[in-house]
Amino acid sequence: MSTVPFINCFEVPAGKDDEFLAFWLGINAHMRVKPGYVSHRLHRSLDAGARFRYVNVAEWTSAEAWEAAHDAEFAALLATSEFRDFVSIPGLYEVVHTGHVAPVG
Amino acid sequence: MSTVPFINCFEVPAGKDDEFLAFWLGINAHMRVKPGYVSHRLHRSLDAGARFRYVNVAEWTSAEAWEAAHDAEFAALLATSEFRDFVSIPGLYEVVHTGHVAPVG
Repeated sequence: MSTVPFINCFEVPAGKDDEFLAFWLGINAHMRVKPGYVSHRLHRSLDAGARFRYVNVAEWTSAEAWEAAHDAEFAALLATSEFRDFVSIPGLYEVVHTGHVAPVG
Repeated sequence: MSTVPFINCFEVPAGKDDEFLAFWLGINAHMRVKPGYVSHRLHRSLDAGARFRYVNVAEWTSAEAWEAAHDAEFAALLATSEFRDFVSIPGLYEVVHTGHVAPVG
């Protein structure tokens, strides 16, 4: 099944990892039970000083399902003081090129 | 096998998609034959005006293998005029949270 990737890059100030994760887990708990959610993988930078401390890569069945998940409850989750500390750059994508190393046989 | 994700977010000016892809494919052809390369997935934004027009998510066996792939040949590939048009924000990551919808049974 072809999916629609959603990628969100987060800037998290030093020392705010725990606060960010608490915020993000709340959003994630909302999103992952919505129709059309398929999967997600949250990444944390190995370098604590990286521009994007966290990057979430999720898969949805469609752009429409992803949009529908941004409902009133989602808006309420965003309207917390924690959210204002974190710059996020979200976007929907399509996969245009893939590759994989040949299996060692 | 646990892998080390490498994520690179690219800003590509409008109308420069073909130029970017030609540049990126040259870099990718170099990287994907290096020891430690596992896989990659290049994403293009559904919204042509997205901040990051392209995001590459690759997997490497280790940070050391990824670093070793940045050799003199890589530096020569970067030293082209095309590269200067594209802002990139690269970083190595670890996966800290995953989820997947329950299979419909």
